[in-house]
Amino acid sequence: MSHPSRPRLLTGDRPTGRLHLGHYVGSLANRVRLAREYETFLILADLHLLTTENSPDAIARIPQHVREQVLDALAVGVDPERVTFYLQSAIGEVAELNTLLQSLVSVSRLQRIPSLKDMSLGGEMGYALLGYPVLQAADILCVKAGAVPVGQDNNAHVEVTREIARRFNGLYGEVFPVPAAVTSDVPSLIGTDGQAKMSKSLGNAIYLSDPPEDVDRKVARMYTDPQRVRADVPGTVEGNPVFEYHRAFNDDRAEVADLEERYREGRVGDVEVKQALAAALNRFLDPVRERRAEYAARSGYVDELITSGTERTRTVVREVVFEARRAMGLTGAYNRLRRKAARSATR
Amino acid sequence: MSHPSRPRLLTGDRPTGRLHLGHYVGSLANRVRLAREYETFLILADLHLLTTENSPDAIARIPQHVREQVLDALAVGVDPERVTFYLQSAIGEVAELNTLLQSLVSVSRLQRIPSLKDMSLGGEMGYALLGYPVLQAADILCVKAGAVPVGQDNNAHVEVTREIARRFNGLYGEVFPVPAAVTSDVPSLIGTDGQAKMSKSLGNAIYLSDPPEDVDRKVARMYTDPQRVRADVPGTVEGNPVFEYHRAFNDDRAEVADLEERYREGRVGDVEVKQALAAALNRFLDPVRERRAEYAARSGYVDELITSGTERTRTVVREVVFEARRAMGLTGAYNRLRRKAARSATR
Repeated sequence: MSHPSRPRLLTGDRPTGRLHLGHYVGSLANRVRLAREYETFLILADLHLLTTENSPDAIARIPQHVREQVLDALAVGVDPERVTFYLQSAIGEVAELNTLLQSLVSVSRLQRIPSLKDMSLGGEMGYALLGYPVLQAADILCVKAGAVPVGQDNNAHVEVTREIARRFNGLYGEVFPVPAAVTSDVPSLIGTDGQAKMSKSLGNAIYLSDPPEDVDRKVARMYTDPQRVRADVPGTVEGNPVFEYHRAFNDDRAEVADLEERYREGRVGDVEVKQALAAALNRFLDPVRERRAEYAARSGYVDELITSGTERTRTVVREVVFEARRAMGLTGAYNRLRRKAARSATR
Repeated sequence: MSHPSRPRLLTGDRPTGRLHLGHYVGSLANRVRLAREYETFLILADLHLLTTENSPDAIARIPQHVREQVLDALAVGVDPERVTFYLQSAIGEVAELNTLLQSLVSVSRLQRIPSLKDMSLGGEMGYALLGYPVLQAADILCVKAGAVPVGQDNNAHVEVTREIARRFNGLYGEVFPVPAAVTSDVPSLIGTDGQAKMSKSLGNAIYLSDPPEDVDRKVARMYTDPQRVRADVPGTVEGNPVFEYHRAFNDDRAEVADLEERYREGRVGDVEVKQALAAALNRFLDPVRERRAEYAARSGYVDELITSGTERTRTVVREVVFEARRAMGLTGAYNRLRRKAARSATR
């Protein structure tokens, strides 16, 4: 366990439900690739969900949401033999390490992270939300992950993990690898409304599990070049979400090039471009939906994958947290009391 | 366990070493009394120590410091049959509950507590230090203490616990008693320098374990009325630390009244007043030192008291944290996954 043959990587999401094309472009595609290279732990980060949504209703949805997310990951090709899925809240030692690491970072350091303010949705900043990057550090360090995939959003968070790991190692001795941020050059995907990043809460998402007719319907309603009132008006393909999706998902590159050229020259209608996109998306999604259906049909399979992964991760985490406590001197402190107590009892 | 015959009370200190007369007046005397009335848990709060002192040296001193504090408590008459001592850091579930409760309070609420700023010693506020009252809430709630003795310092902290308990119960159902603050009217004790509250760090303390000659020496050097340059100058007894101590510790009330009268009238020298005080303090401390020596002579006894108390407390805490997780829906979430996984495995 302590010397894995492949370097360890931690990745994952808060369990907010089914994943969409934006997740695929932003992280899932990357995870499929990285899982071949790294021993991957995929966290189902429900304690992180509590930092902004802690209602009983939100918590009650966790099991269904983690199932959907694991199904989505398997559907796009994440190899269950190479990835350990685990439910964060089921491992108490993650929360324990979180408490221990919280003394290694200052309030002002955390307040300098802009994304946390965005997450507080203009309301009062919760204490747990301010500590979001510390809990992430606990997630990463409790499995001794040496690598973490980062996008634009979480780079600043991983930097906090690196600082905490260095501070811990400097104070108590080398326990944690300082994780490397694995960056990918994939930009975030615009939503079907063309106004903002694809997001569940904005209703501008196409899900990996959407049936073909939903994809057709969502694509038909997509935002395109608003200047283009007729098919013979030359249009813009840059920043046009329909063409963004063509470039990201259409495997028929010749078709994409042809459509782009005709669109620029006012020689193609939006309907044709969109029908070609819907067809391309469904070509991409068909095997995804098929694999998803196969995994979903195996009753209890996903649940078993999560629970066995959680038990396996728990074993790793217990060992690491024990090592951290020992390095800090906390385990030793209690053991010294225990040993003397035991000597007295045997007299 | 869930329905103790006597109401539960939590009290305790950070393990900073031997206790002094200020601790006795401010809390220890009260604890002896309260332990007769309540089922008392006495926390040796080393995780709290980490919020301001997390060096390996500070951690290495924890075992010795907790031993000294427990000896001091026993020496002043805390009944080991009625009090459960426990080492906070040895119970991982305390830290787990801490993480769960952190989502129930805002940053600004915690920033309004003035004592935390004082504790940060003018340096950068640590994230864990800002969360000090949340960790205290975890301490109090994880044993379902219905009562907490408070002084001037920690009243604001216990109010945070009460808010967190109410918020938790409101969101997830009645799990935690909202603890009552047990106030005592004992003022804090001034140090031997007459300048500030008695405090280890200011070097103005008389310890419960000081030998008689140290008490004599410290009293001889005590600050008194600075206006009084000769024994025949009338002096002030109010706010005079020597007379404060006489009133707090001298069991010979007639002697105190006589000395006060003569001091006011300029008919007694400081030396006589101080010698009477040293004698009174030593009368008070003699049985304390004797009990301390008796307990210290029983090899391993204190260590056994701490470790058996810690194991007993762990059982209580595990049950309470399990109940809290279940009320939140977290245990249920994982169990639903497990059950389905198990059904699949038995097919």
